[in-house]
Amino acid sequence: MQLGTVIGNVWATRKEDDLTGLKFLFVQPELPDRTSVGDPFIAVDRIGAGFGDRVLVTRGSAAANMSIEQNLPIDALIIGIVDSIDVERKEVNERE
Amino acid sequence: MQLGTVIGNVWATRKEDDLTGLKFLFVQPELPDRTSVGDPFIAVDRIGAGFGDRVLVTRGSAAANMSIEQNLPIDALIIGIVDSIDVERKEVNERE
Amino acid sequence: MQLGTVIGNVWATRKEDDLTGLKFLFVQPELPDRTSVGDPFIAVDRIGAGFGDRVLVTRGSAAANMSIEQNLPIDALIIGIVDSIDVERKEVNERE
Amino acid sequence: MQLGTVIGNVWATRKEDDLTGLKFLFVQPELPDRTSVGDPFIAVDRIGAGFGDRVLVTRGSAAANMSIEQNLPIDALIIGIVDSIDVERKEVNERE
Amino acid sequence: MQLGTVIGNVWATRKEDDLTGLKFLFVQPELPDRTSVGDPFIAVDRIGAGFGDRVLVTRGSAAANMSIEQNLPIDALIIGIVDSIDVERKEVNERE
Repeated sequence: MQLGTVIGNVWATRKEDDLTGLKFLFVQPELPDRTSVGDPFIAVDRIGAGFGDRVLVTRGSAAANMSIEQNLPIDALIIGIVDSIDVERKEVNERE
Repeated sequence: MQLGTVIGNVWATRKEDDLTGLKFLFVQPELPDRTSVGDPFIAVDRIGAGFGDRVLVTRGSAAANMSIEQNLPIDALIIGIVDSIDVERKEVNERE
Repeated sequence: MQLGTVIGNVWATRKEDDLTGLKFLFVQPELPDRTSVGDPFIAVDRIGAGFGDRVLVTRGSAAANMSIEQNLPIDALIIGIVDSIDVERKEVNERE
Repeated sequence: MQLGTVIGNVWATRKEDDLTGLKFLFVQPELPDRTSVGDPFIAVDRIGAGFGDRVLVTRGSAAANMSIEQNLPIDALIIGIVDSIDVERKEVNERE
Repeated sequence: MQLGTVIGNVWATRKEDDLTGLKFLFVQPELPDRTSVGDPFIAVDRIGAGFGDRVLVTRGSAAANMSIEQNLPIDALIIGIVDSIDVERKEVNERE
């Protein structure tokens, strides 16, 4: 999974039938220290995430595992809203 | 999911049997401000997207979830035509 | 899906049992103007593609959807031989 | 699979229902010589990995295969704690 | 699929239950001319590959298709040991 911050919304009236009613949010991926890393992408949200929230996102086809009856054509899902993070810096050599 | 703009078509008469009748469109991936990012790719369209439309695309094997009876060998699907986008710039440090 | 040109073959006598009889081809990925982009990879072919053919390739686990009875451990499948392409250049700013 | 070292934890009270009770750890990906490579990501752990442990991680939707009854929306799973590694340097030319 | 050479082993006693008995090998990905490309990764081997063997590897969740009864949480599988390769250089312009 990946950390990110919700930075916006996208609306699409005309869409694949199965996706009606889903909420699509823009997420900016981040490192644990909140540095942005990579381009923003769009994720489905079912747990009530909003602008500025720090979230956990599952990417790829596993995102579709959210629905039990039928797998949907989505490739990113917000699976959690982050309460806290505890990361220590590894004491090793970084590749230059 | 990823934003993009439809920039063209590709035709292939000889193809895997299950794919007959599907429409294949070139999509140029973009950031929310419409800057191009990365190389164009080919996505299946079932919702009537056309040249110049701004679209939402699902990539990877989740694209195949569009069909209920049988999963098809496709790895990108246009899932929506974008009405509007609302993105605010994150107030954080970018990685240099 | 991705465009590419068939540039060679690979043979492997000793392999996973389920893969006996499949044809494995090297594909060089390309942009619509036939510029090479990225490293060549190996794809399964069932539609009779040959050296120099321009092909459409599905990558990732969706490639395994070609078989109905049983999903095979393959991650790239040639799904079409390209007849023609029609791409117009987007009138937008490229990222520098 | 990929090597990495556990560098921290992340907590999220509000999350997708199916994920209650799972442990989420930050993993820094590494080469065999323990050089860091790429950005840290978050993986589910069910085998008791802890801070500083060197682990094997499966990424992508195969991570969801850990559960037999139902596939969960997770995209990284710690599948092993590394005992030892034996790697010899390839005697070939590196790309420059 | 991807070409590579087996460069080592990794052992993990404590691991996900379903993975007991599997052999994990380090593979260095390569181009057809045996130039190394990208970082080494770990793949499951069931066909008896050994140190120095040139192999074909399936990456991503399709690797889990090796098992019929139950999909395992693995993301790379050695599917063949290469006998020979025949690649011709494409006569086109490379991107600079």
